Amino acid sequence: MSAPSFGFRVVAVDGQARSGVLTTRKGEIPTPTFMPVGTQASVKTLTPAEVEATGARIVLANTYHLWLRPGPDVVAQQGGLSAFMRWPHTVLTDSGGFQAYSLAERRTLSDEGFVFRSHLDGSKRLLTPEEAMRVQGLLGSDIAMQLDVCPPATADRKEVEDAVAQTTRWASRSLAARDGAQALFGIVQGGVHVDLRRRHAAELGALPFDGLALGGFSVGEPPEQMHAALPEVVPSLDPARPRYLMGVGTPRDLLIAVLAGVDMFDCVLPTRNARNGQAITRRGALSIKQAQYRNDARPIDEECGCPCCRNGYSRAYLRHLFIAREILVLRLLSQHNLWVYGDLLSRAREAIASRKLAVFAREWLEPG
Amino acid sequence: MSAPSFGFRVVAVDGQARSGVLTTRKGEIPTPTFMPVGTQASVKTLTPAEVEATGARIVLANTYHLWLRPGPDVVAQQGGLSAFMRWPHTVLTDSGGFQAYSLAERRTLSDEGFVFRSHLDGSKRLLTPEEAMRVQGLLGSDIAMQLDVCPPATADRKEVEDAVAQTTRWASRSLAARDGAQALFGIVQGGVHVDLRRRHAAELGALPFDGLALGGFSVGEPPEQMHAALPEVVPSLDPARPRYLMGVGTPRDLLIAVLAGVDMFDCVLPTRNARNGQAITRRGALSIKQAQYRNDARPIDEECGCPCCRNGYSRAYLRHLFIAREILVLRLLSQHNLWVYGDLLSRAREAIASRKLAVFAREWLEPG
Repeated sequence: MSAPSFGFRVVAVDGQARSGVLTTRKGEIPTPTFMPVGTQASVKTLTPAEVEATGARIVLANTYHLWLRPGPDVVAQQGGLSAFMRWPHTVLTDSGGFQAYSLAERRTLSDEGFVFRSHLDGSKRLLTPEEAMRVQGLLGSDIAMQLDVCPPATADRKEVEDAVAQTTRWASRSLAARDGAQALFGIVQGGVHVDLRRRHAAELGALPFDGLALGGFSVGEPPEQMHAALPEVVPSLDPARPRYLMGVGTPRDLLIAVLAGVDMFDCVLPTRNARNGQAITRRGALSIKQAQYRNDARPIDEECGCPCCRNGYSRAYLRHLFIAREILVLRLLSQHNLWVYGDLLSRAREAIASRKLAVFAREWLEPG
Repeated sequence: MSAPSFGFRVVAVDGQARSGVLTTRKGEIPTPTFMPVGTQASVKTLTPAEVEATGARIVLANTYHLWLRPGPDVVAQQGGLSAFMRWPHTVLTDSGGFQAYSLAERRTLSDEGFVFRSHLDGSKRLLTPEEAMRVQGLLGSDIAMQLDVCPPATADRKEVEDAVAQTTRWASRSLAARDGAQALFGIVQGGVHVDLRRRHAAELGALPFDGLALGGFSVGEPPEQMHAALPEVVPSLDPARPRYLMGVGTPRDLLIAVLAGVDMFDCVLPTRNARNGQAITRRGALSIKQAQYRNDARPIDEECGCPCCRNGYSRAYLRHLFIAREILVLRLLSQHNLWVYGDLLSRAREAIASRKLAVFAREWLEPG
């Protein structure tokens, strides 16, 4: 059973990399694509039109947060996430498992699911694969994720094996409980163990998921371990379905993953770092509060076409706003950073189409 | 001596009220007009384009704040306030006296000026009429204000008389120290004492100011006292020059002042109340965090044309954002409230042109 009007087609291949088109009931999304994170049904500080202008056609919302507040009943009564947040394009929701694991208090795991206490009010909650599907159904996202167990980087091989096994059992329960209107992705675990990853990819690939994700990367391991594992692991994910690398990452991470054949990404990095005063550029991060920018009339990046750079906001002004705690700078840096990500993936798609991704990636990562 | 390209002409009169056009080196501003407050060279949460969309063609920036941070030298080096904040229209700066009086620590007043300590770093500062002009000259505003003494509502008549006398002495020193490129307004004090106000208006009216302001209203007195004083006081301000009521106020305050013949207003109310979750409507204030809006699919005001109401953001969504502390709601409510103010004054100008201001004011204040 696949969701109606959901589809994925590859349109160009360059080595292991591919560009394609993901189709949902909301429209088409060129891949590889970056999904800005709208944790609480808002990409922090930005309007939907501003998010769209960065090139994004899909955002991620967090089931855990929306489950606790305002509650899925409110979102459902307001017509689902897209209507609620005035975002006309595709919404993907995670399962809530990652936050229940990392944010909640007194969490326990059993075959049934996670029992935890809300970080907001301490109330006791049970998150099962079925509940994760029910809540995501009420939230009305276009793509739902199965509940999975995501071990930290400190987990030993045995713990990772247990997480893989539990995730597989929950995969079947998630498919059985799915809302037919939503696409549903399975989540491959296995840490940095390539053999476990490949075996899990084959197991979940045998199930009727609409897409396959890699969870459990960027959970504290050295980035080089992920960079080494991706080219080994990604090809084991069914090439006919979209491949989503969860919670990753820096521009370097994204390029390495695209080279390995990943189609979808999400990460709080561009928006969170913006709110900490960090602008992302091809020449590295720029920390806007530094004294060196006190009288700097230049925009963040003279080559950038984002609203912040194009409208001539100077580093001197942005620094002033940041030090004076003015909200406007958080908006402008968030727009800039998401623009950089959108532009990076747009150029990567073009490079794949012309079979020049390796050259493009090298140039982007090592600007002259 | 008047500033180049500064001018004011009355285009329609309705009772004591008038509509007109204020001309500065940046362009024309239809009056009566509301000036959004950009304390630290930013109308909080909004871009210049968003402020412009509310109808504003002039904003106010605070000399005290910008003097202390980032410093007038930085703003001057970046080309002055309009260039610094990317606001292509007119900027008015206050003198810094009000904040030096109300915000700073260990403030003392002498004929020379205010000695105070910065609320940011405790540094000792001297604010004289000449220094206020020098700093405003560096900030590069189009309209500067003289340094004045603004007594609180608790001041007795003797204190108010002293403030009037000191303000008059500083008026002459301000004119002597002015930057010829800026327009300069004098400030009439006198509290709620109509005779003092009239005498001070005549004294300052005899000086070559480009405009005349009423300071010292809305400083803690009951609103009714200001409402009663305005029709008595405003006509004593030279009708050939723009009249500016400082730091006022609610929509009701504005309509009463326009009826009395005021041309310009500034107030933090619409933006500050927005950040506290309060939306202003013709039917009163709407506090968005209230539980009654949990599932309310309506916009704040179905008759409003602002981006928040027009784009269909529901009260339920806005409430969720406010409770979840999402910045987007502060933006949307700020836009809404400034839109209401801009719309109110636009309609007031039309009403004056058709000599129906009294009817319009009654209808606005008492909606059916």
